[in-house]
Amino acid sequence: MPIITAVTSHDVRFPTSLSADGSDAMNKDGDYSAAYVVVHTDDPAVKGYGFTFTIGRGNDLCVEAARQRGLPLVGRDVESTVSDLGGLYRELASDSQLRWLGPEKGVVHLAMAAVMNAMWDLAARVAGKPLWRLLVDMTPEQLVDAADLRYLSDALTRDEAIGILTEMAPSRESRIAELEARGGYPCYTTSAGWLGYSDDKLRRLLQEAVDEGYRHVKLKVGADVEDDIRRLRIAREVIGWDANLMIDANQVWDVPEAIEWIGKLAEFKPMWIEEPTSPDDVLGHAAIRAAVAPIGVATGEHGMNRVLFKQMFQAEAIDFCQLDSARLASINEILSVYLMAKKFDVPVCPHAGGVGLCELVQHLSIFDFVYVSGTLENRVTEFVDHLHEHFVDPCIVRNGSYVLPSQPGYSAEMFEESVAEYSFPDGSYWTSASTA
Amino acid sequence: MPIITAVTSHDVRFPTSLSADGSDAMNKDGDYSAAYVVVHTDDPAVKGYGFTFTIGRGNDLCVEAARQRGLPLVGRDVESTVSDLGGLYRELASDSQLRWLGPEKGVVHLAMAAVMNAMWDLAARVAGKPLWRLLVDMTPEQLVDAADLRYLSDALTRDEAIGILTEMAPSRESRIAELEARGGYPCYTTSAGWLGYSDDKLRRLLQEAVDEGYRHVKLKVGADVEDDIRRLRIAREVIGWDANLMIDANQVWDVPEAIEWIGKLAEFKPMWIEEPTSPDDVLGHAAIRAAVAPIGVATGEHGMNRVLFKQMFQAEAIDFCQLDSARLASINEILSVYLMAKKFDVPVCPHAGGVGLCELVQHLSIFDFVYVSGTLENRVTEFVDHLHEHFVDPCIVRNGSYVLPSQPGYSAEMFEESVAEYSFPDGSYWTSASTA
Repeated sequence: MPIITAVTSHDVRFPTSLSADGSDAMNKDGDYSAAYVVVHTDDPAVKGYGFTFTIGRGNDLCVEAARQRGLPLVGRDVESTVSDLGGLYRELASDSQLRWLGPEKGVVHLAMAAVMNAMWDLAARVAGKPLWRLLVDMTPEQLVDAADLRYLSDALTRDEAIGILTEMAPSRESRIAELEARGGYPCYTTSAGWLGYSDDKLRRLLQEAVDEGYRHVKLKVGADVEDDIRRLRIAREVIGWDANLMIDANQVWDVPEAIEWIGKLAEFKPMWIEEPTSPDDVLGHAAIRAAVAPIGVATGEHGMNRVLFKQMFQAEAIDFCQLDSARLASINEILSVYLMAKKFDVPVCPHAGGVGLCELVQHLSIFDFVYVSGTLENRVTEFVDHLHEHFVDPCIVRNGSYVLPSQPGYSAEMFEESVAEYSFPDGSYWTSASTA
Repeated sequence: MPIITAVTSHDVRFPTSLSADGSDAMNKDGDYSAAYVVVHTDDPAVKGYGFTFTIGRGNDLCVEAARQRGLPLVGRDVESTVSDLGGLYRELASDSQLRWLGPEKGVVHLAMAAVMNAMWDLAARVAGKPLWRLLVDMTPEQLVDAADLRYLSDALTRDEAIGILTEMAPSRESRIAELEARGGYPCYTTSAGWLGYSDDKLRRLLQEAVDEGYRHVKLKVGADVEDDIRRLRIAREVIGWDANLMIDANQVWDVPEAIEWIGKLAEFKPMWIEEPTSPDDVLGHAAIRAAVAPIGVATGEHGMNRVLFKQMFQAEAIDFCQLDSARLASINEILSVYLMAKKFDVPVCPHAGGVGLCELVQHLSIFDFVYVSGTLENRVTEFVDHLHEHFVDPCIVRNGSYVLPSQPGYSAEMFEESVAEYSFPDGSYWTSASTA
């Protein structure tokens, strides 16, 4: 079996700020970016690809942190390494000097996500399976050995985790068949609702979403309450009252302000309010949830680690868990959040969009349905139709569903030409942009 | 008045791992380091110095992040900039692309601390005052304008913050006189209790601490319970039962494990257990506190931002708040934590040690006593006697108290020779260490 010879990291940035794609009340000018990691081996046919997602400046910090995170991998045997990704994760996470910079949050944790995403991609490629299938084929004990349960035992013990999976294991194949029969895992679209879009563009994109079969759409709110009311009225005119409307404030409010503002939008019956305040504020989300019911509270794209999610569950702070596949430290930490969500009966609706997040989360949602939650009720995964053309195995969405991926890996590989063109600051796009 | 011409950042690392200084159950081999920032102006006599603290690898990430954080400062007029450090802070913190990497945590937040610490140092130097005096001379409104109150209004409103300071303002000078009369602000020592020290070295250092007038000492615990019992027995033999003994587990336990382990150490009557579990776990600390009373629960050196501390106060999770002067984003965020601590009646006992943290926290504790808390009851600030020789205006500790600093600034300036010798990896210490 091959040996890991190098872990390279790459600063890839797309100029999305030019078109206001991704604009919201907090993030006005993001250039969607990836700190992209390639695990090389002495076999040119065996590589692993992964990334974390950022919105521009500082992506270089994640690239350098990922380079440092990857150094201990060099020289290791691929077969034994991918057979114990829990052990590898714990070893990398215990670097006491890097740990100080978080712990388990911010740049060093994003870099852990990038490196471990690449290692899970490598594991799935070596097994010749899409990642969701690799996970589905693991035993409950193997999955729980891979999961990071540290600091969670007051909410979920190892035995409870194994118990959840053991109960679901016998019926895995029937749920895979069910997903295939219904055309995939249901998703919703955010492509219509960015704050920087005009009313006409909003109306046109919402109509397109309805025509494409979406039953859920999401709009950004939080910059101006009168604008929000006008845009939500347009949305209900286009999608009607049977479809689901979600709103997203991207952390702009203090807790009392959130409660007051959401009250003014309640007439449009949103299914959830997303990121109403600081993503760190467990007790704040709990207070908002109590005040705005029956509107659900959703958060998680900035949820820094499993300890935050544990508390969100313990405090009954959220109705929907929106974990992020490139902010949590890959499958090892994501498994723990899914298992806690099951125990606390909170649906997981992963955050996606950005660069390649849709490619990753489709695997997670399928795994969740097949092996953890066993239900699609109240579950819908984000989909944003941007930048998929840069991926070798892009997600396929039809009739409002993610079609089950079939290629080996975690769908994280980007075209070499895309990486070269959008490498920052020396790729051809950026050098010509700077001279233009 | 001068103009800011450059903000330079420097990777300074001291080889403390060689002597096991700073060793504990989580951090076994730290090389105490600073991401050191110098704000240069066109007047060679006008500079500002600041830093954040790390324990080695990854310090370079903070150095680069601080460089990026400092770029917007170049070209600004010193006088108008230091007269509105609240406005500057909010401008830097709102960089939407860098914000994604936290938000407000990890490497980008540590870098904010380094840059804003340097700006507060500059402000105090321009005013010709030690930082504590600069703060004490500000009006309640000026201080609250500088404070970052975002996301806090459910716990502390602007009016409440002004009210706290307004009540204390008339009696400021009497408390300064009181501190001067008692010889400074009381501190405790951690120098004796590192986990890597032998029993004989522990006993000797504890005796020295007693002889030097300390009434509080702290020991590291959490690696092995039998070792802990033996070491705590030694400690009580040396310091007796009237002095205060604190213990520090540096985050090694899950919540149930913490409760069980602390129970086994209760016979030694520790005043507090520090960092019993993940620093992110508000509800976990609350559960531990309820279970181990009357032993107090302390945490904060890894407290990532003011939103975490807000929740620690709201959940009644801690008995002692150990904010960190280089992890919170300088005075702007620290002010908010002090004001909340006052409202929630939690004593603040800042974390120190590391590189230069003692130099900073003496200013904070003095300000707290004079303008916020008004009391020394249950308050004692950490002191570790390492690495002060590298600072131009080192803290002075006599008879277990920090003597009031008198030089202008935040005491953050390091000797140029120290920066040069310990610059990583090209300073003379590290080049000769690598060839040795």
